[in-house]
Amino acid sequence: MPRSRLSGSFSTPRVDVVIDMGNPVLNVAVDGFIKIGAVAATRAAAEDAYHSAKSGNMSFDKLEHSFKKMCKEGAYWGTAAGLYAGIEYGAMKVRGTRDWKNAMIGGAMTGLVISAASSHDRDKVIMDAITGGAIATAAEFLNYLT
Amino acid sequence: MPRSRLSGSFSTPRVDVVIDMGNPVLNVAVDGFIKIGAVAATRAAAEDAYHSAKSGNMSFDKLEHSFKKMCKEGAYWGTAAGLYAGIEYGAMKVRGTRDWKNAMIGGAMTGLVISAASSHDRDKVIMDAITGGAIATAAEFLNYLT
Repeated sequence: MPRSRLSGSFSTPRVDVVIDMGNPVLNVAVDGFIKIGAVAATRAAAEDAYHSAKSGNMSFDKLEHSFKKMCKEGAYWGTAAGLYAGIEYGAMKVRGTRDWKNAMIGGAMTGLVISAASSHDRDKVIMDAITGGAIATAAEFLNYLT
Repeated sequence: MPRSRLSGSFSTPRVDVVIDMGNPVLNVAVDGFIKIGAVAATRAAAEDAYHSAKSGNMSFDKLEHSFKKMCKEGAYWGTAAGLYAGIEYGAMKVRGTRDWKNAMIGGAMTGLVISAASSHDRDKVIMDAITGGAIATAAEFLNYLT
């Protein structure tokens, strides 16, 4: 089964969750969902920690609100990332090569799907697909710079 | 001199601009500026091409407006990318390792600087730094999935 390739580059906090869905595309998508969901939940937690450290008060209600926000943001970012990782992996398999065009296809399709799910304005959906493709291409290029 | 490492993964359209600034951090930053600026300019051009293909008219004024938008967006994305690439590279050199924490530092510092340059709300600047770090970490993780 395809184990997560993250383990090498990922030292502290060590997260290595392996879930086998029996299908490589699904494995990649679930991996993306879990990892990026965790990043987004951490971001939401950091944001709320800053706010409560600044205002100096902390209540059970606030904690509950923070937790709900972590789950919501984690699920949202995780869905986008899982979709992206699955489509990019699928594009790599279909095209048979590994280059920035897979990232562009993944980003554009993810932008399209996420935008189409939340909006009925066709122009906006196409703009979001173009922007998604551009962001994914930019991230892919940046990765090869250093 | 450090040549661009992109050439291997980058087949059609082939772009290989090498500018030597005499300093590795500056080289990486300039490389990021040019490449991501080009991606952003392409995005702006694609957006305007869609709009004029849909409305079916095309004038010199519109072309001029598109070109100005390409330059503006290219410069904006390019600045953010150059800043990010330079800081990430610097963090790698200072820390002596290559892992997701460099991306997090780069993203957080870039978010901080870009936000501080355009806004005077201190809370918003810190939120943007947290979000920048989270986005860069997420992009770094996604890159190791496939």
